[in-house]
Amino acid sequence: MPPLDEFARIRAWTQDRQPKETFELAGVSLGIGDDAAVVNGAPGMQWLLAVDTMVERVHFLEETMGDADVGYKALAANVSDIAAMGGVPKHALVSVSAPPAWNAERIGRLYDGLYACADKYGIAVIGGDTTSAPAHLVVSVTVIGTVESGRAIARSGAKPGQFVFLTGPTGLSAAGLHGMLAKSDAESDGRSKSNPKLNPVPSRLAQAHRRPSPSVKAGRLLLESGWGASLNDVSDGLASEAWELAEASGALLVLRESALPVSGELASYASEQGKRPLDWVLYGGEDYVLLGTADPRHEEALKARFREEGLPLFVVGEVEEGTPGVVLETPSGARKPLAKGGYNHFPEG
Amino acid sequence: MPPLDEFARIRAWTQDRQPKETFELAGVSLGIGDDAAVVNGAPGMQWLLAVDTMVERVHFLEETMGDADVGYKALAANVSDIAAMGGVPKHALVSVSAPPAWNAERIGRLYDGLYACADKYGIAVIGGDTTSAPAHLVVSVTVIGTVESGRAIARSGAKPGQFVFLTGPTGLSAAGLHGMLAKSDAESDGRSKSNPKLNPVPSRLAQAHRRPSPSVKAGRLLLESGWGASLNDVSDGLASEAWELAEASGALLVLRESALPVSGELASYASEQGKRPLDWVLYGGEDYVLLGTADPRHEEALKARFREEGLPLFVVGEVEEGTPGVVLETPSGARKPLAKGGYNHFPEG
Repeated sequence: MPPLDEFARIRAWTQDRQPKETFELAGVSLGIGDDAAVVNGAPGMQWLLAVDTMVERVHFLEETMGDADVGYKALAANVSDIAAMGGVPKHALVSVSAPPAWNAERIGRLYDGLYACADKYGIAVIGGDTTSAPAHLVVSVTVIGTVESGRAIARSGAKPGQFVFLTGPTGLSAAGLHGMLAKSDAESDGRSKSNPKLNPVPSRLAQAHRRPSPSVKAGRLLLESGWGASLNDVSDGLASEAWELAEASGALLVLRESALPVSGELASYASEQGKRPLDWVLYGGEDYVLLGTADPRHEEALKARFREEGLPLFVVGEVEEGTPGVVLETPSGARKPLAKGGYNHFPEG
Repeated sequence: MPPLDEFARIRAWTQDRQPKETFELAGVSLGIGDDAAVVNGAPGMQWLLAVDTMVERVHFLEETMGDADVGYKALAANVSDIAAMGGVPKHALVSVSAPPAWNAERIGRLYDGLYACADKYGIAVIGGDTTSAPAHLVVSVTVIGTVESGRAIARSGAKPGQFVFLTGPTGLSAAGLHGMLAKSDAESDGRSKSNPKLNPVPSRLAQAHRRPSPSVKAGRLLLESGWGASLNDVSDGLASEAWELAEASGALLVLRESALPVSGELASYASEQGKRPLDWVLYGGEDYVLLGTADPRHEEALKARFREEGLPLFVVGEVEEGTPGVVLETPSGARKPLAKGGYNHFPEG
């Protein structure tokens, strides 16, 4: 009888990784191990479901992401989608297809990172599929969350007169990636495939890229207060996400350049590199902060609530009537249309 | 402003593909298009969740599967996991990562097949992520189903004295694949990469491989009657799945060789090829029929219910006390231990 390596390994990667309480709180009646997981329904609640995929050499390189970071970020990106609806993330199902270069040890580290993120956000990992692949790693995660019935904050709720906010600065992840790739090019002759050296860059920028922090608390605050009118997470870059809000809502978003938050680390790094921070701020993706709109009569109260919780909130513009789109108002007061930008997976034909 | 090809294409592949009623029946409040889908809870029900992944060159070749078949089967394999718990499949989230060889037209065909399966089983496709990939296609599908609270049929319910059943013959998919690969080898000089010719093999065998029919009705009948004691779907081969049932239940499964169903098409094809049908029956995977156990006092009633519904049911063995495992009883009455077999994704180190 051949050893059942596959099942044994999947068990090693996933069994008894989380405390019983996580499963109880998430209403899990049966986790990984049968054909399907069993989860209790929740009266008065709706389920939120989202899927997100990370592909090696498209979304990450081994020169820029540790094995554990890949698992962490694959889950975090999904958690961000639940945050962007104002929901509470509860469960995750994970699919990993791994080429030979990803041996059992590396897949184990990927799961370590994924569980680190799951534990941080109280998420029960309830399903998984791990298969081989010929050439590159793909991690696909489905996250399930809950939200009070009828209260999910959609993209389409922006209305003229509302203000536009961000729950954190943008551009850090892209600048972090830029730093790692620049370093990596410089060292590319001595690069080791099996044990990559991760390149040192300003740690907050690298951390933003490798282990993003989705704004779950901010999303909950916006929903519970009833003050969040529209909401989107900044996965494809601020400009691209603002366009999505504008088009879904049928409104014009005005972003004020002088109000856009630029972190100190990003400003210094940009200056060092002779780059404009604004490009990263507008077009860098994968920051996973929230972009949204709210009624100005709640502005002061909302700022106070965020302050109480120790959460950042930046008012960065206004919603106006007009052809749906996004304009940037420069410090001089001039307005210029903002290109959608963002990463396009299918640019040709 | 660059054209947003990616979003436009994903919309083309997924928007307005299903009637409103499918979404209403599945309790979908918001489908594809925002950060997450929103689904209503269901009192008295539990949710079943499963994920399954198909990787090009591991799970399929373009010589053996049409583009639409890939989408159909990716969903069908997941539907089978819900069937194997006795549940009703309701929602699906799809992740596709596609290399350059899979252009928009081919991905469109993949989605056509996926929606054909979704429509057949009344499943609402509520989420998706489509990205590029460097080398090979990966489709990962998460399916969500419902089941009456506390009633899901697990693998662990097999008890000594019960009979073992199958809801259909096994081995057809593997024989179909064998036929297609044999043909493909013979023609490999003239093979076209971009427009593969699918090879003609006995149509029921090819169909079993390309468009499997998960046993949703049979699973529901087993749950609703209360007579299904344990249940598993035959995705990795009959021997492997019988081992899973035996180990999860802590019991010995005895399969009677003479009782194992062999379809006429499989028997003829095996004879033509000078092969033993039993090898395919026991070790061929991806049949997606159900293997389960039930109490003998329900045997006649269960057979009658299946007959009424026009569904096949084959009694193929018994559960006995003993070291957990699987034995095959030959027509002469001799018993031999059955190797687990099945496909192992990580056979080495």
